[in-house]
Amino acid sequence: MAPVLAMPALTHAQTRIRWRMPGSFPKSLDTLYGTQERIARRVREMTDGAFEITPFGPGEVVPALQVMDAVGSGSVECGYTSAYYYLGKDPSLCIATCLPFGMSSRSLWSWLQEGGGREALRDVYRDQGVIGIPAGNTGAQMGGWYRREINSTADLNGLKFRIAGFGGNILQKIGVVPQLIGGADIYPALERGVIDGAEWVGPHDDEKLGFQRVARFYYAPGWWEYAPSIDLMVNPAAYEALPSHYKHILEAACTEGWHWMMARYDSLNPVALRRLVAAGTQLRFFPRDVLLASYRAAQEFYAETGAANARFRRIHQTWDAFRVDQTQWFRIAEDSQANFLAVASAPR
Amino acid sequence: MAPVLAMPALTHAQTRIRWRMPGSFPKSLDTLYGTQERIARRVREMTDGAFEITPFGPGEVVPALQVMDAVGSGSVECGYTSAYYYLGKDPSLCIATCLPFGMSSRSLWSWLQEGGGREALRDVYRDQGVIGIPAGNTGAQMGGWYRREINSTADLNGLKFRIAGFGGNILQKIGVVPQLIGGADIYPALERGVIDGAEWVGPHDDEKLGFQRVARFYYAPGWWEYAPSIDLMVNPAAYEALPSHYKHILEAACTEGWHWMMARYDSLNPVALRRLVAAGTQLRFFPRDVLLASYRAAQEFYAETGAANARFRRIHQTWDAFRVDQTQWFRIAEDSQANFLAVASAPR
Repeated sequence: MAPVLAMPALTHAQTRIRWRMPGSFPKSLDTLYGTQERIARRVREMTDGAFEITPFGPGEVVPALQVMDAVGSGSVECGYTSAYYYLGKDPSLCIATCLPFGMSSRSLWSWLQEGGGREALRDVYRDQGVIGIPAGNTGAQMGGWYRREINSTADLNGLKFRIAGFGGNILQKIGVVPQLIGGADIYPALERGVIDGAEWVGPHDDEKLGFQRVARFYYAPGWWEYAPSIDLMVNPAAYEALPSHYKHILEAACTEGWHWMMARYDSLNPVALRRLVAAGTQLRFFPRDVLLASYRAAQEFYAETGAANARFRRIHQTWDAFRVDQTQWFRIAEDSQANFLAVASAPR
Repeated sequence: MAPVLAMPALTHAQTRIRWRMPGSFPKSLDTLYGTQERIARRVREMTDGAFEITPFGPGEVVPALQVMDAVGSGSVECGYTSAYYYLGKDPSLCIATCLPFGMSSRSLWSWLQEGGGREALRDVYRDQGVIGIPAGNTGAQMGGWYRREINSTADLNGLKFRIAGFGGNILQKIGVVPQLIGGADIYPALERGVIDGAEWVGPHDDEKLGFQRVARFYYAPGWWEYAPSIDLMVNPAAYEALPSHYKHILEAACTEGWHWMMARYDSLNPVALRRLVAAGTQLRFFPRDVLLASYRAAQEFYAETGAANARFRRIHQTWDAFRVDQTQWFRIAEDSQANFLAVASAPR
């Protein structure tokens, strides 16, 4: 009698790879830095330990806002950062993260994966010497903390507000004086009255930074960051040296990271917001005239940026056509349910 | 001079595995069956061809609605199906897919991954002899096709409507006569007037089935399927026989599938809906009194189901607490942007 044969094993062995992954986000943030760690862990798990990526916090290998440069120059193999930190080099990098009054997370994911977004952005990353893989998203952010109420556009006039990216350029058009201040310095600036307000992320992260102790009014929505995407940026030479199945595993770990970060924020934000409100934070919505003035200023800013940069204009046009389509479709099947349920299931 | 040493290769080889994956969804659907194929492809790519899963359409290996049974009995290693098809065996299986007036895709994903959902459902799957991995989602569905307008709850009285799952039980409470009809038989039933209306998925899939030719009114939203999840069900013995890193790869491929299916629907649905409306389909929203009566009937149905089944009651309670939290949080940062943009960016 012939013995039962075990399934034959393939003969090629797993190639051992070691990469370094510096990031732009403080190690204290279990959401942003937590996702960076998780991506590294998942790649290790999916390769049975053969492909090891070591995550680093800001400043450990390179400064927070020089991650893309380090990847591009090949001094590290990959890095975890947001493309819009580098918009001074190319405004199209901002489209890879989020544009103010942009798309929801679902729509942005669809545009990137099925709407031609990643193809459109490939050259933008290539010009910086990197390959960009979407690898995180915070979901919709809040509109920031203010020491006094914003009742109309007039209240924005001369307001010194901490904000980064194109949101600042747009707010400047309607009177705000945008301030660029690093995460760790926001709290003291707000406490001493050097600034009148500041935006960061949302309830879970903001509570950790303690803004509720120095500003009373918490506004929604953060229209400048509806669904900001975070990238794993990879050095092309390091990428090409990977066995094909490691490339696929890296891609899958990044997709997991994108959606895991949102799952985590979505489970933590409601709890943090409830705590903040119970402790005295006053929740407010921006008045409609403020939103409308901001929206018009944003469209004006995109027209100006496009006039000065043909690639931005081209990508922005396809992005915007997709966005408008999404907005009109989502109001029918998705938002109508959200809006009904917000009222029907409100706690009594 | 010593030669440059190549990176050492790990000595263990890739184990060769062959699985069969029957599914519940017609091969003609590039969305639902397309995701089943994609998961198999991604597992193959991530294992360099060592782990091969062959997808099958309904009836090729087992009938569409016996996939879970085939996996549970071990006659196949895995299958691509929806847990709620089997709710006759256990009402808690419906929670794994979607409950009427349930959660959005973002909230459901958060509940499953970070809110304790998968842990809560583990026993439910185990009782059926399977392991369930979330592996697809259609996003919010439409409320179906009707031959006449629904202007009030009274118009539902005696309406013969094709619908599957708990949505039918709930609609029955407010006068609808639910009809269980297989996908291929819906069109002729609607054409001959045997039924007055029918729901399927959304614009992209519905258009393929041709409902627009036999019913004029297309309603939103599909409150019974806000974000239905599709599972890869796996036989526990087959699963335990996998090397650890193949388990991780399978999980990642399913996560990719969940979000890829939505990306695809989100990019295709707006285009299909525009075509339908241009060709004469009348788009309508359910009147508020119909939604409210349905919502109340749903809560009544959950109370009855929970009274008869302690596990359903327990899981539904934690699910519902998470849902209400999500609903209240999303209206602040997410829905407020969606609603503003729906108006601000409406085509003129």
